[in-house]
Amino acid sequence: VLGFSLHEIVLALGGELLGDPDFRVYQLRSLTEAKSLDISFVRDDVPLAKWQTTQAGCLIVSAKNQAAAVVRGHSIITPDPYLFYARLSGLWRQRFGAPYHQPGIHPSAVIESGAIIDQTATIGPLSVVESGAHIGARTVLVARVHIARECIVGDDCILHPGVVVGADGFGFARRSNADGGGWEKIEQLGAVRIGNQVEIGANTCVDRGALQDTVIEDGVKLDNLIQIGHNVKIGSRTAIAACVAIAGSTSVGSDCTIGGTSNIAGHLTIADGVHISGATTVMKSVLKPGTYTGVYPMEPHEQWEKTAAGLRRLSGLRERIQKMESKLNGNLSP
Amino acid sequence: VLGFSLHEIVLALGGELLGDPDFRVYQLRSLTEAKSLDISFVRDDVPLAKWQTTQAGCLIVSAKNQAAAVVRGHSIITPDPYLFYARLSGLWRQRFGAPYHQPGIHPSAVIESGAIIDQTATIGPLSVVESGAHIGARTVLVARVHIARECIVGDDCILHPGVVVGADGFGFARRSNADGGGWEKIEQLGAVRIGNQVEIGANTCVDRGALQDTVIEDGVKLDNLIQIGHNVKIGSRTAIAACVAIAGSTSVGSDCTIGGTSNIAGHLTIADGVHISGATTVMKSVLKPGTYTGVYPMEPHEQWEKTAAGLRRLSGLRERIQKMESKLNGNLSP
Amino acid sequence: VLGFSLHEIVLALGGELLGDPDFRVYQLRSLTEAKSLDISFVRDDVPLAKWQTTQAGCLIVSAKNQAAAVVRGHSIITPDPYLFYARLSGLWRQRFGAPYHQPGIHPSAVIESGAIIDQTATIGPLSVVESGAHIGARTVLVARVHIARECIVGDDCILHPGVVVGADGFGFARRSNADGGGWEKIEQLGAVRIGNQVEIGANTCVDRGALQDTVIEDGVKLDNLIQIGHNVKIGSRTAIAACVAIAGSTSVGSDCTIGGTSNIAGHLTIADGVHISGATTVMKSVLKPGTYTGVYPMEPHEQWEKTAAGLRRLSGLRERIQKMESKLNGNLSP
Repeated sequence: VLGFSLHEIVLALGGELLGDPDFRVYQLRSLTEAKSLDISFVRDDVPLAKWQTTQAGCLIVSAKNQAAAVVRGHSIITPDPYLFYARLSGLWRQRFGAPYHQPGIHPSAVIESGAIIDQTATIGPLSVVESGAHIGARTVLVARVHIARECIVGDDCILHPGVVVGADGFGFARRSNADGGGWEKIEQLGAVRIGNQVEIGANTCVDRGALQDTVIEDGVKLDNLIQIGHNVKIGSRTAIAACVAIAGSTSVGSDCTIGGTSNIAGHLTIADGVHISGATTVMKSVLKPGTYTGVYPMEPHEQWEKTAAGLRRLSGLRERIQKMESKLNGNLSP
Repeated sequence: VLGFSLHEIVLALGGELLGDPDFRVYQLRSLTEAKSLDISFVRDDVPLAKWQTTQAGCLIVSAKNQAAAVVRGHSIITPDPYLFYARLSGLWRQRFGAPYHQPGIHPSAVIESGAIIDQTATIGPLSVVESGAHIGARTVLVARVHIARECIVGDDCILHPGVVVGADGFGFARRSNADGGGWEKIEQLGAVRIGNQVEIGANTCVDRGALQDTVIEDGVKLDNLIQIGHNVKIGSRTAIAACVAIAGSTSVGSDCTIGGTSNIAGHLTIADGVHISGATTVMKSVLKPGTYTGVYPMEPHEQWEKTAAGLRRLSGLRERIQKMESKLNGNLSP
Repeated sequence: VLGFSLHEIVLALGGELLGDPDFRVYQLRSLTEAKSLDISFVRDDVPLAKWQTTQAGCLIVSAKNQAAAVVRGHSIITPDPYLFYARLSGLWRQRFGAPYHQPGIHPSAVIESGAIIDQTATIGPLSVVESGAHIGARTVLVARVHIARECIVGDDCILHPGVVVGADGFGFARRSNADGGGWEKIEQLGAVRIGNQVEIGANTCVDRGALQDTVIEDGVKLDNLIQIGHNVKIGSRTAIAACVAIAGSTSVGSDCTIGGTSNIAGHLTIADGVHISGATTVMKSVLKPGTYTGVYPMEPHEQWEKTAAGLRRLSGLRERIQKMESKLNGNLSP
């Protein structure tokens, strides 16, 4: 049978159905793409003008939008339409999407002796699991994932292609010239410990610790092409967008979000509940929850040249202001 | 036979030869490295002083530089010397370079059942092509490339080692604490569609869409270590340099160029013909063609400390100026 | 036998032992984690208050801290405690860590005919070494490393998982619309030459040159997810932290350090002994040694909005100051 009846959906996911339980929807689509036999959802922050004209056959809305939704057709009322959509996407994939990865070890994967892999885990093609590593229950290494010696990945994790867990952290001691010059390698004696329900995006790297372990706690979500340096700790449920770099020995709290391409210097502490905007450089510890930003604004190129030139002369500007102020205060005071 | 006669070159690529057709050149080299038996090229924007002293035996120049080139030796005149050089590099590789990748599937590659691969395509060593994926004619996956389920790669594409096409986009809905807290995964039900003549650099990631597809149009060139988020669209012939990140649902127009390490926030629209300088953060849609920049200028460290401190006090500065202005206008007006 | 006696340590690494030669230490730990049977080290820049309370059974210190160390227990005196720690980490790994990679070619690696691999080199699982490439003595490709045709890797190098050496540089010539529009590929006829004692982090990319080679000199250390463009030269012993991008044809000197996520534009020259802070964009050549920085400061989001708005009005501010100055000078001069 194609599609879902609305009855099936609320039976599986809850929500109050205002409409025909036998009405069938055939695609889960965005508001702008949905047609009359599709289902879509309205986030509370989308203004009415933006969704009133959708052609979706059924809308998932909160109580706030109930009246406006019901007048246009079938509706499912739920406190959090976005969360409902997330769960509906799971239902959709289960029935119509590509099959989930099957437990087992792909014959092309390389598993060193002494690796411990749960029977329900999936080790995808061309992955490497080194000696002493542990892979937890129902965890999926999609393909071409590297788990280095003694690193631990918990249960229900998903690691996407190209992820490298447990490569050496970047540690070198400088040799004096008398001692031959250059850099002496510091062996990275720690490992990586990853909790449960962690997802790690394609080509992201999590380095092993120098002395203690690098730690990724439960429920952390890492996007693609992220760098996590040695000895870093990421607190539970923190979500980090693509291309972020976190330097060594920094501790990030729980329930933080870090926007894409931001970076955090080493040896810092970021408190719980801190939100770093995208493209922001963090050079000091952040001890209070809140949102922090540091982005140089973009301008048409000619205008930027003026602004950047002015910026370089900023300290001179301050001196000129001070001079004028003393003049004004001296000459103009009664 | 080693090298090319100038006659062979203009026969293959056009251009007007002013010099000896039987003169042979043995290497294609830059102006500074070329010797008397080598060929090189002069871009129109290179001043005479920079190329007059080259030892190259033959120069490719435009009409603008014809007189100055001819007095020093063999010359090939062509409207666009850089384009001529590009084509000559192809000729050179054909005859003297490593052989091009042969069509066929390397025995170490993992091809899931249901993948459709053109007979003229090259699937390099240790690549993965998942079920339902399509690989077009003459397309080359160099090595260690991942093409996820149902993703489409067009004709005449080159994907370099480590490329990941179709990993899950970064989509999660927050669960309330009453609901257990943390993040609910949004299944990524879309795929990736890549057009023809697209080149994708090493370790670059293109995520699959959440509901609709992520789209890379014909002739797009992506450098290394780039992140393309879910639902993004990149218009035809747009070229993007290394380490750029484009967040989810953003649409970039055709014939744009984006400089290295720039980043574009999500849900934005970038018009056709927009040029973003390197290291620039784009936080708003750009609806007019032109060049846009936003780079904080580098300084010697001590000077930077002063500038950055001044920047934080900028709003205070403005207030002081306003105060002085009203004082001046009040007290000094006649 | 577990652990090391202090006698064994100074026998192997030098240093003056002030304490019991038979005292055994069982772990090498940081100052805060070390317990009474562990050994730790004190860098000269750590203030006494920070290390006085460590429980470490033995401390490695310099003469500067000798008195304070000796009163609390066993001590090893050495001119550079951090370098001593680096060497001790090597000793530790030799005896207790995972075994080092064994020389030889893993059966899952793909070696093209015409590749030359030293008998003492390690080619880890699922790596690719293309035709004409050279791999030097004792060099380790950990796993899933790609060395493209004709690229040379010297002796005693370590390349971590996902490294790509010798993918095509990003070179295209624009075709005029009359010529069909779009981009003409420039074949990358150069290769990559990597010296001895070079370490390259996970998923880092070093592109092959367009005409000449890309060069990484002896003793260079590259962290993870770095992009080295075509024709770049990195001078000996330069160390580059994660996520740095260096655009094509730039030359970086010897003994430089480049902080994480910085980027350097193309065709520039960076002198020997230059230190670029993290997150800094380099748009001009740097011809004098020293430390250079260009980071936009982070603020609480609301404050940032004010600062960024002020920045855009900076040139206006300057004009207002000029106007006031001339007014003041005109009206107030005697």
